[in-house]
Amino acid sequence: MSEDNQNKTVIFFIISDSAGETASKLAQATMAQYPTVDFEIFRRTFITTKEALIKSLVDAKKHDAIILHTLINEDLVKLAHDFCEASELYHFDVLTPPVLEVQRRSGVTPTREPGALHHLNKNYFKRIKAMEFAVKYDDGKDPRGFLEADVVLLGVSRTSKTPLSLFLANKNLKVANLPLVPQAHIPKQLWEIDPKKIVGLTNDPEVLNGIRKERMIAYGLNPDTAYSDIEKIKSELAFAHDLYEKLGCVVINVASLSIEETASMILNALNLEDHSYYITEDNAD
Amino acid sequence: MSEDNQNKTVIFFIISDSAGETASKLAQATMAQYPTVDFEIFRRTFITTKEALIKSLVDAKKHDAIILHTLINEDLVKLAHDFCEASELYHFDVLTPPVLEVQRRSGVTPTREPGALHHLNKNYFKRIKAMEFAVKYDDGKDPRGFLEADVVLLGVSRTSKTPLSLFLANKNLKVANLPLVPQAHIPKQLWEIDPKKIVGLTNDPEVLNGIRKERMIAYGLNPDTAYSDIEKIKSELAFAHDLYEKLGCVVINVASLSIEETASMILNALNLEDHSYYITEDNAD
Repeated sequence: MSEDNQNKTVIFFIISDSAGETASKLAQATMAQYPTVDFEIFRRTFITTKEALIKSLVDAKKHDAIILHTLINEDLVKLAHDFCEASELYHFDVLTPPVLEVQRRSGVTPTREPGALHHLNKNYFKRIKAMEFAVKYDDGKDPRGFLEADVVLLGVSRTSKTPLSLFLANKNLKVANLPLVPQAHIPKQLWEIDPKKIVGLTNDPEVLNGIRKERMIAYGLNPDTAYSDIEKIKSELAFAHDLYEKLGCVVINVASLSIEETASMILNALNLEDHSYYITEDNAD
Repeated sequence: MSEDNQNKTVIFFIISDSAGETASKLAQATMAQYPTVDFEIFRRTFITTKEALIKSLVDAKKHDAIILHTLINEDLVKLAHDFCEASELYHFDVLTPPVLEVQRRSGVTPTREPGALHHLNKNYFKRIKAMEFAVKYDDGKDPRGFLEADVVLLGVSRTSKTPLSLFLANKNLKVANLPLVPQAHIPKQLWEIDPKKIVGLTNDPEVLNGIRKERMIAYGLNPDTAYSDIEKIKSELAFAHDLYEKLGCVVINVASLSIEETASMILNALNLEDHSYYITEDNAD
């Protein structure tokens, strides 16, 4: 490859008849493989007419973009295909292969309705409720939430309890979380629920020390406070581990994990990885 | 197709060397096209060894599953390909096509590192901060958040402010929201920020009436309270619209929109759809 290529910005065009979430995720996963390459990503969402699609394709051609599309209307799929072939534009039709395979297996014709994933069905409202639940019962605000929750997260400060709760809520799970500090009162509800619903989050003392120092600096405070003191952190973690053992719950060390990774581990540990949270309209209850 | 096919459960196997989010989204988008078909979805995540992959593939074969995979290690990609071809198992390699196309264009070799999308980089921490921000400044809890926010959502009760805030937070945007009730005090900070950052959410009175009646029923209360009274709802909406006009902000009616769709419209309206929130490690600041 030429030197010239090395400095070229690679442009993705996400073209979708809906919100474009699937193809955007794919573009991001691809980009993450090339930390030294410059990328731009353009999103053309809610493309449901030929006119809008042609406009997006012409625009993509101008940028010599990599086109990732998730279109369901057959005319639009064909238009995208023919345009890209004629213009020698790279295009990847992400949705058609699995859609056709399901048709082949089931003998059922797809509805070909754009945005079907986001229909305001029971599943959708369950997810919205789960998100509201996560905000309502974040940070131990109301221990009654533990009784209703599908998952209860415990952890010392800076073990990603809030973002994890929100991430799992997006998978229809009702999540409550409780920050652990040695002096804190442990709500009695924790002992009333199935320990299989509880996850104890922990972290390496050195990692917490680093994060907390940064947090103090961000607040414009002295980084060497009790909050970031390594001995204090160790005693907090010991208190947490002691509680986890008494509860008999799963323990996950988040030290080198992203929330996606931790969330996947939680789902595995709690046997929620399969089935439960990908519910389509007709088997929603 | 035979009758028999019609009743068969279609099974997806998501196989990923990371959290499997991309392929899961694709499976969901596919399933949404077949509201009458029964599906099951099995997720095999963090598959990074040949042994684990073979185990997953054997399991997928037992279920005669549709395999969607996002593997980056070349040996694993080849193993999955060869196994599926030999076993006549349907497989769709979602990640390889765009990864190879970027290599062709840039001349750069992909890192081939599993889970690169979830690296704990600046982008990641920005997103975590955005999620914490959304929870902290939800529901008008602290009007100082408006000054710091990238997006401020206003709306009467039941216009999806909280889930929208969380969804946008997941795209690295700092979002604060304020519920509007006619008697409420409008914080002075709203007049100090750029109206281009503000989105006024509205809804059809009939839709709100229906949602609120259901909410009252869910609470075990009489559905015909002032909260669900159509005239009261209309006056709330009029109050909101009047404020939106004074602020000069964008107005979006969420009546028939999912949060994904509303979020996409907000991003479009605020010119945030492209670039801004898909930041890779090296262009994070």
